[in-house]
Amino acid sequence: MQIVEQDIEEHPPQNRSLEALKHLGPGGAAVQQIFSMIGHSRFFSDFTRTDIETLARSMQIYFAEPDQALIREGDIDDYMLLLIEGEVEIVKRDRRDLQQPMTRVGPGATLGEMSMIDGEPRFATCTAVTPATFAVLSRDGMVKLILEEPSLGAKILIKLVTLLSARLRQTSHNLLHHMER
Amino acid sequence: MQIVEQDIEEHPPQNRSLEALKHLGPGGAAVQQIFSMIGHSRFFSDFTRTDIETLARSMQIYFAEPDQALIREGDIDDYMLLLIEGEVEIVKRDRRDLQQPMTRVGPGATLGEMSMIDGEPRFATCTAVTPATFAVLSRDGMVKLILEEPSLGAKILIKLVTLLSARLRQTSHNLLHHMER
Repeated sequence: MQIVEQDIEEHPPQNRSLEALKHLGPGGAAVQQIFSMIGHSRFFSDFTRTDIETLARSMQIYFAEPDQALIREGDIDDYMLLLIEGEVEIVKRDRRDLQQPMTRVGPGATLGEMSMIDGEPRFATCTAVTPATFAVLSRDGMVKLILEEPSLGAKILIKLVTLLSARLRQTSHNLLHHMER
Repeated sequence: MQIVEQDIEEHPPQNRSLEALKHLGPGGAAVQQIFSMIGHSRFFSDFTRTDIETLARSMQIYFAEPDQALIREGDIDDYMLLLIEGEVEIVKRDRRDLQQPMTRVGPGATLGEMSMIDGEPRFATCTAVTPATFAVLSRDGMVKLILEEPSLGAKILIKLVTLLSARLRQTSHNLLHHMER
């Protein structure tokens, strides 16, 4: 991700998975909803109300029916999402091309941070198990936030580093455990 | 990591591993040296000369003899480092408390980012294989950079997210590979 002013576009992200889903509107209208689920989200624990309002204005709200994909393995797109309501299953294709369930997440979970930042293909598929409402932050939205609200941008980036760091520790532990068997 | 102005201290980090090593001085004096190894470092590939100079002024340069540890598994300390010269081996204790070599890295590698950000104990030990010169960025130094040079701070944070993301993808791939066996 490079921060270049002219890269920023004003419209919501156009992405294959999102295009198939219902767009509920800009995130600014969902501040109260986002606020009411903050208790569940490690991501927002030290954000002020103003932080959340600013961030929400950079997001778009979408809705997925059960079995619809929020993110598809292998796709190249550029958003992360914050699950506001509902349950989502994460599955990945194994070597025999079968979908293997990895884990389920609920409100407050964030998904898709890696591809938002590094632009690499999606690692896994995220599918709604129940009706699911979620807020989308595109790479453009993130770049704009960093340029216009640098201290909030830094706060979000530090959160992302902390989150990835925790996942990397956990995954490395699991890997060592499997290798020592 | 919380960004709080009064947390910042002006002295170099006091850490168990670093205390045992030779302190060569502030990073500002090593800008040329850091610049000359940029070609090897994915970390710096899109940093300008001014970026490097500003970052170098926030760093301290240390030297380790072969077999000296730059970072020790289990320690709680707060710095990341950039290897300028030499080779470093990363080892981790297995369940029988034996040191298992994981990988070796050379000039341009960064180490210890996770603990700098999340403050959790060190995941592995990094030991010099050859005489090694490296630049240290403490958490205080990072916080100060973010506050005083927010756009450079964001650039470094984006690098860290990208780096952790790449490692997480690789480690997850390795884990899946082992689980599918």
